[in-house]
Amino acid sequence: MNPPIRILGIDPGLRKTGWGVVVSEGSKLGFVACGCVESDGALPLSERLRQLHDGLSRIVSSFSPDEVAVEETFVNRDPQSALKLGQARGVALVVPALAGLSVAEYAANLVKKTVVGVGHADKKQVQMMIRVLLPKAETKSADAADALAVAICHAQHRGMRALVAQMRAG
Amino acid sequence: MNPPIRILGIDPGLRKTGWGVVVSEGSKLGFVACGCVESDGALPLSERLRQLHDGLSRIVSSFSPDEVAVEETFVNRDPQSALKLGQARGVALVVPALAGLSVAEYAANLVKKTVVGVGHADKKQVQMMIRVLLPKAETKSADAADALAVAICHAQHRGMRALVAQMRAG
Repeated sequence: MNPPIRILGIDPGLRKTGWGVVVSEGSKLGFVACGCVESDGALPLSERLRQLHDGLSRIVSSFSPDEVAVEETFVNRDPQSALKLGQARGVALVVPALAGLSVAEYAANLVKKTVVGVGHADKKQVQMMIRVLLPKAETKSADAADALAVAICHAQHRGMRALVAQMRAG
Repeated sequence: MNPPIRILGIDPGLRKTGWGVVVSEGSKLGFVACGCVESDGALPLSERLRQLHDGLSRIVSSFSPDEVAVEETFVNRDPQSALKLGQARGVALVVPALAGLSVAEYAANLVKKTVVGVGHADKKQVQMMIRVLLPKAETKSADAADALAVAICHAQHRGMRALVAQMRAG
């Protein structure tokens, strides 16, 4: 029997960064907490990034995750918004790394495929499936639901990796 | 007479982040130090960002700048490289903010215009002008020279702002 693993999922964004914590034990999944860290658009960029940094640092220290997963958000054709998203993503990746945690990255399509069954699901479908998979989750925001979806995706794929490793060892 | 101000300039990049420290006193400029923080391309992204974070944190605590200036690097048409650059930029902006420092941003064109005189100068011209403006600077790398150029740009423009404020008050 594998010990329970606490996974923090993060869906980065400059205005709102979604986060969600789940516990994965064998094939069982449990909801721990979820929410959003927001930054104040009236502040200079460096201050907004500090708000995300401080918020995520508090979550890491409050929930002590064993592993972290971050969504590889889809990059559209606009380089300016890609740069903006990248800045929030840099903070979302560095905070768990500073706490000594390993950070897995999953493409948005794989996250949706794992949780909804199709790679091109919209945000509402993700929210609906999160309610099915984690009935106790209060996913008021789509960003928190997306973050829980990344955490579930990691729970699924790290389990598969372990299975493959076991089969090879056996 | 204005007291001397220590300025840290940063030219962010995922592989190499250039940094340079100058002292600005009235119209005089002095070189303090410059260099590059590098990240190991063989490591996961979160670890590479941690390397940039740790390197920049050491520089901030070693040189205790009063103010920080970061280059608003030109974003080309490729959203993937904009995302990559954004991640390094997010770390470059958050490190001084965590130390309580204000961070000014300057467009790459303004930096070049201030230092070289034209907005479309190439890296070699910037390096050459840095050697003229800061004869003691050993700018082995173009990234360190770019970082010194951002610091000089801030020294110039913060002075102008003060002058405008004085004229208005007068």
